[in-house]
Amino acid sequence: MTRAAFYKGHQSFGVEQIQAATPAPGEVAIDVAYCGICGTDLHIFHGNMDARTGDHRVIGHEMSGRVAALGAGVEGLAVGDAVVVRPLVHCGECPACKAGYTHICHKLKFLGIDRDGAMQGRWSVPSYTVHRLPAGMNLKHAALIEPLAVACHDVGRAKLKAGERVLVIGGGPIGALIGVLAKRAGTEVTVAEINPARRTKLTQMGLAVIDPGQTDVAKWYQDQWGGANVVFEVSGSDPGAALMTAAAATRGRLIIVGINGRKPNVDLFQFFWRELELYGARVYEPQDYDAAIKLVADKVLDFESFITETLDLSDIQSAFKKLDSTPDAMKLMIQVGDVH
Amino acid sequence: MTRAAFYKGHQSFGVEQIQAATPAPGEVAIDVAYCGICGTDLHIFHGNMDARTGDHRVIGHEMSGRVAALGAGVEGLAVGDAVVVRPLVHCGECPACKAGYTHICHKLKFLGIDRDGAMQGRWSVPSYTVHRLPAGMNLKHAALIEPLAVACHDVGRAKLKAGERVLVIGGGPIGALIGVLAKRAGTEVTVAEINPARRTKLTQMGLAVIDPGQTDVAKWYQDQWGGANVVFEVSGSDPGAALMTAAAATRGRLIIVGINGRKPNVDLFQFFWRELELYGARVYEPQDYDAAIKLVADKVLDFESFITETLDLSDIQSAFKKLDSTPDAMKLMIQVGDVH
Repeated sequence: MTRAAFYKGHQSFGVEQIQAATPAPGEVAIDVAYCGICGTDLHIFHGNMDARTGDHRVIGHEMSGRVAALGAGVEGLAVGDAVVVRPLVHCGECPACKAGYTHICHKLKFLGIDRDGAMQGRWSVPSYTVHRLPAGMNLKHAALIEPLAVACHDVGRAKLKAGERVLVIGGGPIGALIGVLAKRAGTEVTVAEINPARRTKLTQMGLAVIDPGQTDVAKWYQDQWGGANVVFEVSGSDPGAALMTAAAATRGRLIIVGINGRKPNVDLFQFFWRELELYGARVYEPQDYDAAIKLVADKVLDFESFITETLDLSDIQSAFKKLDSTPDAMKLMIQVGDVH
Repeated sequence: MTRAAFYKGHQSFGVEQIQAATPAPGEVAIDVAYCGICGTDLHIFHGNMDARTGDHRVIGHEMSGRVAALGAGVEGLAVGDAVVVRPLVHCGECPACKAGYTHICHKLKFLGIDRDGAMQGRWSVPSYTVHRLPAGMNLKHAALIEPLAVACHDVGRAKLKAGERVLVIGGGPIGALIGVLAKRAGTEVTVAEINPARRTKLTQMGLAVIDPGQTDVAKWYQDQWGGANVVFEVSGSDPGAALMTAAAATRGRLIIVGINGRKPNVDLFQFFWRELELYGARVYEPQDYDAAIKLVADKVLDFESFITETLDLSDIQSAFKKLDSTPDAMKLMIQVGDVH
């Protein structure tokens, strides 16, 4: 038996004892150590994704753990290996899969949304989703590999060149990690963030910040630098969609990272006039996971201070309520099992 | 003395006798043979660009002619050379110029809009804007080099690969030329065009057409091919902005060619979800002119039938009224001088 936290609809979780999973052929059973809470999990909590989750779903996808058992036919892994899971199950048949873009498969199943996720003591997943970690890696830090892989993918889509001016719109966890990686690529990064506590955090992470409530960010970029060469739109907001075109330099590259529930007005004329480019970026590819694992191994960030708080799985309900009421938190971490 | 057609505001032109231009140092005086009428000229005619043109402007930029005189210091050209003009004057100092994108200079002067254009018997232009034509080229066909260069630039931005599915939204002159060039690149092209006379013309040019008034173009693309790999949005319309994201395949490339006066609602979520890419495309670079000259030399199109009608400069007023009232026309050509 093991513990599992089920999303039950109506902003509620129930922690239950369930039978520990045995891996089917081709699957790997993992004893989960840690699992971070992501913006998408908060959307689930608010009931925005009930059509995909239903009301009896184990959520969670930003995890780390150790291999507990191997299903028939699985090779290249051993019981006890420290691992993370790239939580994407693709169909292999659709136009996207056939074109080699399995991460944006038309029938993509996201583990922790469309199928059960990592907020359970033992989790069984297809073996091709598993990445092995180097020896000695802190498993709490390893649970940040998933959001780091998102940032790697986003930054990869931008094809950054050293010396470029980069604007990140929105300084939550993903915006912050994008900022760190863009800076590592030798660019001049500023993060626009409205929340003062987050701005303080970003500054502590070594990032330049700007308050869009106080400064006309587009004018500042145009006056100072002739615009931003690259803009990451992470806010998913209408003001973010307006700012991205207004702040961009000629031939600027805009990366759509945030999720726009509505269809905002977009200044397509500026795309024509300044030959702007816009690139959508969603989740990650296997090489983004490899890159993210290396970033944790290389300790490129003070991961301890990036994690606002760590709570036990039994406290998942209060963790979500806390994250909901304190928008200045960065990353809340759930300890799922006693695995190190 | 020579003739010049001045845009006088209020949908009116006046043809006047003026002193023939003598070229300043670094300039070339050209005896203009032909000058086509473009969609931008029609915008000027309607008064939409009075702030840039004023009410005493020689318009016209889709031209051909022969060198009449060389200003001091001009080399590499001789009197009598058949030429076309790339009607862009850049500043050389702005961020775009410094980055090598002189065609989208922040202070770009467009000849025929911001300065006097080609609807005059003798036109004086900076020598660096002049491209020499190969011997024996039909000068009426050569007046199509400018719109062909636009299409070359648009298609170049798309980085087409043979076998890709291409949708062109809007089958006017530029959409038609984009369709022809995309087909020459080995792609499968369909042009969405609402006007039946234009659809007939496009069919005669060997292009597949679809009527968005009769068919759900997005559904057709998604059902048949999993979406279009490349979409050229040439219509500049709100329905065009909606169709481009709806019809695109995963990782589809959308090229913004049309000019959107307003800021349409854009489905940014689809950019995220399917990792779409959007590229603005404006005017042309020198190599696009070189490519367009070669296309006319290679007679890749039945240029005679692409030109709906040819009128004398003295008939410019009726030419604009005719083009305005017959949206199914392709290219109306003005004979400016008796130059062959």
